[in-house]
Amino acid sequence: MNCLLLEPDELGEGPPDQPRRARIEGRRRRHAEEILRAEAGDRLRVGLVGGRIGSARVLALDAEALELEVLLDRDPPAKRPLELVLALPRPPVFRRLLSTIASLGITRLVVAGTARTEGSFWQSHVLDAEEIRARLLLGLEQARDTVLPQVELYRYFEPLVDEVLAPRIAGRRALLAHPGAPNSCPHAVDGPITLFVGPEGGFVDYEVSRLEGIGFESVDLGPRVLRVEPVVPLLVGRLCP
Amino acid sequence: MNCLLLEPDELGEGPPDQPRRARIEGRRRRHAEEILRAEAGDRLRVGLVGGRIGSARVLALDAEALELEVLLDRDPPAKRPLELVLALPRPPVFRRLLSTIASLGITRLVVAGTARTEGSFWQSHVLDAEEIRARLLLGLEQARDTVLPQVELYRYFEPLVDEVLAPRIAGRRALLAHPGAPNSCPHAVDGPITLFVGPEGGFVDYEVSRLEGIGFESVDLGPRVLRVEPVVPLLVGRLCP
Repeated sequence: MNCLLLEPDELGEGPPDQPRRARIEGRRRRHAEEILRAEAGDRLRVGLVGGRIGSARVLALDAEALELEVLLDRDPPAKRPLELVLALPRPPVFRRLLSTIASLGITRLVVAGTARTEGSFWQSHVLDAEEIRARLLLGLEQARDTVLPQVELYRYFEPLVDEVLAPRIAGRRALLAHPGAPNSCPHAVDGPITLFVGPEGGFVDYEVSRLEGIGFESVDLGPRVLRVEPVVPLLVGRLCP
Repeated sequence: MNCLLLEPDELGEGPPDQPRRARIEGRRRRHAEEILRAEAGDRLRVGLVGGRIGSARVLALDAEALELEVLLDRDPPAKRPLELVLALPRPPVFRRLLSTIASLGITRLVVAGTARTEGSFWQSHVLDAEEIRARLLLGLEQARDTVLPQVELYRYFEPLVDEVLAPRIAGRRALLAHPGAPNSCPHAVDGPITLFVGPEGGFVDYEVSRLEGIGFESVDLGPRVLRVEPVVPLLVGRLCP
């Protein structure tokens, strides 16, 4: 936890440029006690979910709560203008990826069903809104960011393509990571990007044609078959200037 | 397992351009039975550890062994001319990273001790040569590669710098991932690279000066603090053309 994130209702009233009180319970209190070994007078990095970042002085820490005096004086790091469309992976992989995706500064995550996406994955509780939010917050804490990526779930490919992606990719570079594509993936793309990463086993031909048909460009990542967990940061490193 | 890797002693005698017999037991036999649901007559992608890749026909599969007729007719994908020097992370992270590093095609991994590397990590069994090899093989199977990255362990920073890195980085681009460095990390570097990735908590100032003193260039990755697991693929994506 490189930055303790406060929920709006944990932060006391007051002008935004003045120190305000906050009271924290649960996981973050325990983390402050057991991992950070915080004591009264210590300073912690903090942020307000959806808001600014800054620092806090520990006023008190006991078995019940962590009391802070908080000053939020800076903006969080800018998001990358990158929207990731990701075929739903296995639930434990998805759970870990959520934190990674938040830490990487991806603006929006669109979780997609494709022909080779296992249908049973959609029943997993990792897709519950609360679960998703909790995992995203861990990634934001790691990266010292406060702004949750938007997450959207589309189980069915056709409406995703027609109703969501087709209108949305106008004015963006839309890339499809597809082994064997004739063009290799570009580096350091300026401007907004929509990137579609398929399931283990890849896209079926029909999906590739459909996505190319609305303006996606298929790009190759070389002869190595990689798991989705390293592919996402690899593509962020490659595509983002 | 996108490619079943054979050990040299599992492959029968014969001219290298002719089909040869192989007999597989243990984890890979079980994987062929339970995950691939292989049957006599099926074809599997195979490779010889340290050698070529190709395909195999299943001759028989029973509770004891998988019998194959193997033809190794292609070279594995080229390695990236990238040497990674990595401060030893927490053992479970290290174990997962070994497979990722092998799958990414990194040529050599130098595991390093730094001021902020937890000393107890060096006692972990994940550093046993057999454990390391097993994890690397999983990454090679994933990526359809056969060539194990070289792995070297250096617990002490000073001899690593003087005796290993200083002579070895001649003629290479040597980069140090260091938050706050004035230059940002380059994209698509031609030629061989040595990349040093520090521990959680970063390098101490002295280490940065020492490494810059022998020719490392500190490069920044932006304001987000990332875990080492996504940082490694992110840097590979960014640096490798």
